[in-house]
Amino acid sequence: MGFFITFEGIEGCGKTTQAKKLYEYLNMLGFKTHLTKEPGGTLIGSEIRRILLSQWEEKFPPIAELLLYEADRSIHTNNVIKPLLQQDYIVVSDRFYDSTTAYQHYGRGIDYNFVDFLNKTVTEGLKPDITFLLDISVEEAFKRLDRKKDRIENESLDFHRKVREGFLIIAEKEKDRFIILDATKSPDDIFQEVLKALKERKVI
Amino acid sequence: MGFFITFEGIEGCGKTTQAKKLYEYLNMLGFKTHLTKEPGGTLIGSEIRRILLSQWEEKFPPIAELLLYEADRSIHTNNVIKPLLQQDYIVVSDRFYDSTTAYQHYGRGIDYNFVDFLNKTVTEGLKPDITFLLDISVEEAFKRLDRKKDRIENESLDFHRKVREGFLIIAEKEKDRFIILDATKSPDDIFQEVLKALKERKVI
Repeated sequence: MGFFITFEGIEGCGKTTQAKKLYEYLNMLGFKTHLTKEPGGTLIGSEIRRILLSQWEEKFPPIAELLLYEADRSIHTNNVIKPLLQQDYIVVSDRFYDSTTAYQHYGRGIDYNFVDFLNKTVTEGLKPDITFLLDISVEEAFKRLDRKKDRIENESLDFHRKVREGFLIIAEKEKDRFIILDATKSPDDIFQEVLKALKERKVI
Repeated sequence: MGFFITFEGIEGCGKTTQAKKLYEYLNMLGFKTHLTKEPGGTLIGSEIRRILLSQWEEKFPPIAELLLYEADRSIHTNNVIKPLLQQDYIVVSDRFYDSTTAYQHYGRGIDYNFVDFLNKTVTEGLKPDITFLLDISVEEAFKRLDRKKDRIENESLDFHRKVREGFLIIAEKEKDRFIILDATKSPDDIFQEVLKALKERKVI
């Protein structure tokens, strides 16, 4: 029943590049593949993404942020990911619920059980089969961000450090699902490690 | 510490008219008053409202709808209602969390405890001091809707009947807070009943 691959990490870690490379490679091999992302993997989700990443002249309560990410995920899981997995697709997603645990729990400090409960509720228990965490220091990652920062990227370095640490804690808890990659390496070197992990698991 | 008045009921019941009449009357009496609504009582909330009420070419999962209403409410409560109540305002809102219980639990069938938990979480326990429920049959109410229907209004009559029944059940459970008004009466007659209830409670 399909295979679900997610890429996670802080802004500037290179996960979007890797997700795209993998999508193109799997397509070339002839697999039915779909590349998607959170937030914004659906029509409604694109509007939610715009709200989440825009700068606002009013306070954005952390809980509102959490609920918007989960609303996006609910639509994404229901309308895109699950139907494609049922049609035997390999689905590659740039971020999934581990990002919400990292940013909204470890970063913003919202109660772990609340975040975890919403993650499980909106996905109805769907888990990625494999998750690549592109690990890099905040300083190194932010050197790479050459465009204007969005609302989340604009948070303090300290916030992003907590998010990075959060991702490492999550990966440690679920060792079977996570592959931690050194994101300071070249995109091609990282991609070879992605392929190696997928070959070992007989996905390709 | 201020006074919080909400108007509830199905589409076409006349609550928006009553909320506006009350706001203008309280202003005339010299009260510090704020008229607001859900969804869409804030800048970010206006964007969430647009998403919720638009017609979409993809499925809108009930849980995504619930989470978007709660995200809107979190911002509305934090940024508008609570700060104004703390400044001794009378806040008049066209819909609040009873609508979510009525539409998303009684209408859509989402688990009551989940809806109630989110209502309480995003409002951090804030309750209206008085809630006017404008009760009317779905048939009568829908005769009044002369503009193009939005996504929620466009639901089946059966859905709206469940919502109406839901509002009546909620009002029955919280008799001290609710005033049920016969919304088939004239706007002026209804407004006199609103004023009578506020005078009895020594609000005005």
